[in-house]
Amino acid sequence: MSNNEMVSPLTFARIGACLRLPQQLSKFPHMRFREEKEVSVRPEVEEYFSSTRSAPLLVAERGLCPQDSKKEVVRIGVLFSGGPSPGGHNVVLGLSEAMTRLSTRNKLFGFQEGFWGLLHGDYVELSHEFLRNWTNSGGFHLLSTSRTKLVGQQAFEQAMEVCQSLDLNGLVVIGGDDSNTNAGLLAEFFQKQNFKTSVIGVPKTIDGDLKGHSIEISFGHDTASKVISELVGNVCMDALSCKKNYHFIRLMGRHASHLTLETALQVQPTYTLISEQIRRDGVSLDKLISSLAKLIKTRAQAGKNYGVILVPEGLIEQVPGIDSLMCVLNDLLARDPHHTLDTIHQSLDPASATILGSLPRTIQEQLLYDRDSHGNVAVSRIETERLLLSLVKQTLEKKASEVPFSALTHFFGYECRCAHPSHFDAHYCYALGMCAAALVLEERNGYMALITDLEKSVSSWQVKGVPLSSMFHKERRRGQWSPVIRKTLVNLGGPAFLRLKEMEERWAVKDCFLSPGPCQFNGNSLTDPHDIPKTLYLEKNACGS
Amino acid sequence: MSNNEMVSPLTFARIGACLRLPQQLSKFPHMRFREEKEVSVRPEVEEYFSSTRSAPLLVAERGLCPQDSKKEVVRIGVLFSGGPSPGGHNVVLGLSEAMTRLSTRNKLFGFQEGFWGLLHGDYVELSHEFLRNWTNSGGFHLLSTSRTKLVGQQAFEQAMEVCQSLDLNGLVVIGGDDSNTNAGLLAEFFQKQNFKTSVIGVPKTIDGDLKGHSIEISFGHDTASKVISELVGNVCMDALSCKKNYHFIRLMGRHASHLTLETALQVQPTYTLISEQIRRDGVSLDKLISSLAKLIKTRAQAGKNYGVILVPEGLIEQVPGIDSLMCVLNDLLARDPHHTLDTIHQSLDPASATILGSLPRTIQEQLLYDRDSHGNVAVSRIETERLLLSLVKQTLEKKASEVPFSALTHFFGYECRCAHPSHFDAHYCYALGMCAAALVLEERNGYMALITDLEKSVSSWQVKGVPLSSMFHKERRRGQWSPVIRKTLVNLGGPAFLRLKEMEERWAVKDCFLSPGPCQFNGNSLTDPHDIPKTLYLEKNACGS
Repeated sequence: MSNNEMVSPLTFARIGACLRLPQQLSKFPHMRFREEKEVSVRPEVEEYFSSTRSAPLLVAERGLCPQDSKKEVVRIGVLFSGGPSPGGHNVVLGLSEAMTRLSTRNKLFGFQEGFWGLLHGDYVELSHEFLRNWTNSGGFHLLSTSRTKLVGQQAFEQAMEVCQSLDLNGLVVIGGDDSNTNAGLLAEFFQKQNFKTSVIGVPKTIDGDLKGHSIEISFGHDTASKVISELVGNVCMDALSCKKNYHFIRLMGRHASHLTLETALQVQPTYTLISEQIRRDGVSLDKLISSLAKLIKTRAQAGKNYGVILVPEGLIEQVPGIDSLMCVLNDLLARDPHHTLDTIHQSLDPASATILGSLPRTIQEQLLYDRDSHGNVAVSRIETERLLLSLVKQTLEKKASEVPFSALTHFFGYECRCAHPSHFDAHYCYALGMCAAALVLEERNGYMALITDLEKSVSSWQVKGVPLSSMFHKERRRGQWSPVIRKTLVNLGGPAFLRLKEMEERWAVKDCFLSPGPCQFNGNSLTDPHDIPKTLYLEKNACGS
Repeated sequence: MSNNEMVSPLTFARIGACLRLPQQLSKFPHMRFREEKEVSVRPEVEEYFSSTRSAPLLVAERGLCPQDSKKEVVRIGVLFSGGPSPGGHNVVLGLSEAMTRLSTRNKLFGFQEGFWGLLHGDYVELSHEFLRNWTNSGGFHLLSTSRTKLVGQQAFEQAMEVCQSLDLNGLVVIGGDDSNTNAGLLAEFFQKQNFKTSVIGVPKTIDGDLKGHSIEISFGHDTASKVISELVGNVCMDALSCKKNYHFIRLMGRHASHLTLETALQVQPTYTLISEQIRRDGVSLDKLISSLAKLIKTRAQAGKNYGVILVPEGLIEQVPGIDSLMCVLNDLLARDPHHTLDTIHQSLDPASATILGSLPRTIQEQLLYDRDSHGNVAVSRIETERLLLSLVKQTLEKKASEVPFSALTHFFGYECRCAHPSHFDAHYCYALGMCAAALVLEERNGYMALITDLEKSVSSWQVKGVPLSSMFHKERRRGQWSPVIRKTLVNLGGPAFLRLKEMEERWAVKDCFLSPGPCQFNGNSLTDPHDIPKTLYLEKNACGS
């Protein structure tokens, strides 16, 4: 990655861009963790964390990194797990930076394709010099990633063997809630075995649902919402320029609507659906469609036959009726995967059959034939934006309302997962990487690297560690109760959602579209409130007031 | 547009960004046009341009704008026509700048929603102060746009009446080939009537097919390809990070594949289809699919089960067999619009029926039910990327090749039409606007504003005018021969396409993906070869060599 034929001019320019550090990290290795209050583990999952459940919150302070006096070579393994998220390469660079500052003899190993590489001992050694050429670049292709999970005792033992063969002091897992669930359970397993490798998690996900548990935001979410806001903002200007189309835009985020909420705050579209609200209020598909049709009619009366409607990817699962239909379909298909639309219709209870029959044929087929690797409905393949469009169209036509209605659909998600990290994510990830290394160097097992006070300037960011075990709760997975890291959904009582609701009527009637434009890397404006996610800004300001 | 609640921070910052000018325009009104050689009109269309066919190429030089001595108030009308394209607002600003420099008493009128506003006398007066707040912003929403055309004598007379009522010296039409066809014919009509309004065209289109005829590039194409390259580049990094998906990406550009070609040169994807080549080589759908399947198998042998394939929107129309099927369908549906898939199959000749039957059902339905306003197949609605994906999948499965094949589709286009204009487009449009005003002020009727030498620094750009009549040829439209501005397709002998072909094998086997990232507005790098379209750079360098 060192010349213009191999990398784009921007990627090349960004390699040289300076990265600032939180005060404590800038002095590293003159930094150590102070133990704060012990963080409680939920009683329901205590049994799973008998060895790692008593652990304090850690806060960085001046001092000398304990490892510094030992003069031993430190060896750390790192892997990416799950979908890519902007900034991952900077996490690895930060890791390497901290290790190199301590001693150039320290060794960093990268496992290929996530947990797959860990299980199969497929790794590369990463030199600091090599990694410098990956500074600020998007993607996870330094090591690639996969959705391989660590499941069962055998996998844990296999992972331990590989860590042992490499004599690792630490294993850093860069991943979302599922991957960090694996990391937390692996840490517990290692602790029980009295095995020396410290397992450290780093909070990644564009969806933004790995949040709470002291985590202010997961990395990548900021960049993802900036790229998506650029695109949605452009589409808003298109709607306003042509004045003839509604745009139904589905945005990534299966379980939580954070990305949709953040984009809405950035762009101020005509209308925004939030899955969490649909579920809370028990809004049926019929009611949802008629409220959209009503909005379109109201705008038509004001001479506006255009608009932009945001639809979170996971919406369909939260709509009463559809959620139960999907459960029934999953059950039927688990028993007989060869069902066709006809045989399914015959096997369904009347209520589910009516709901399925009310959907356009292509959506029925998506529900039936697009299955994920567990055999469940592949929610991300259901084109909810097309479903809504076609049902709204039907409703408007049925009522012979003579409202002109022309509409287009879009789905945004894949084009943001490997974007060049924003200023915020570039700095955040670099700090997370150094923090993860510091935790390993202090032999802290089962921790999540944590950077807080993210609304402040980089130098004032706080460097911490929080026990992974404190993030777990119990959930039914594959028919049995399992300890997993809880996903954080949009807080319907929080300032970001309340802000959306406050503006909803205004944005629906007036056109208040903003076009945030492409992410800029010039300047030094991280303290500008526009440069951190609006959701974070609102949450922090509400806390402060 | 003057505070942060109405516009995004970037839009606000860009209002204040300085715009440089070509040397001749910077001295305006100390500029006049020198007449160069007369530009010939094609014999086949001479009859349509009896009044405007003898006109010279105009080149700006030092001197005094002739209007300056007259001290009359100048009144100009301007409109956007067709799809939005980044930079349009700067054209209007440039117009206003030139007019204001001459006299603050001059008046600029904006027609709403394109030719619709011209026909209905729906306009607003635009002050220079007001327009300054639109500097460098994306979209056409200053005046909105439409696809209304000027068709027939009555429309021309109606347009003349409105221009007369406003006492216009000039009418500036910002549009693509269709809109400039209208402008050219309106200019001829005005000339015949000895009517004083000068009609001036400005070359706009993201597709890039309004090119040639001395036009080096239409405005908006650069920004559009930068936004699309950002997205495709991110998807390439995603392919490389996850190593499990092929991405079939359809890009806008119905008639010409310029946008696809430029994106390919920016991003270096696995494989790029160019419609013009498919047509030239008479590549059948079968052959196309088997060559893609072969590529995927070859890559699988090298352990690569991922990639990015670019598909121009207009591809399907150029595939032998499909093109004739579409003609037959258009005919059948013109006679009876109530055809269903069943009745169509019965009415088709055996060859066409076989081809139609070979397509997936959703595509058959798109061919049948998605019609444009002329009742023809709406090519932009045909999801060619999904068609290719499903046929490739079938082929791989049929051969039981056991090649792992997982794929996703994308369509990019609408998200780039209203983007913030790139440095190049922002400057280019501002200069085009001033040039258009200068042509009106010299009472030049039936000209296209022209800026050349675009590979050089802005100050060295040349300011010109070329007769619209010289761009016309004869084409069959709605069953009869009509004079229209010729679309410029990708030149299969030109340096840009040859460069693609030269690299094709390398890019198909090795992964040479580049991620150009989001368009940056800092710096002053317009003379950097990376800041102008690669196609333009290659064409200019080939000319020079």
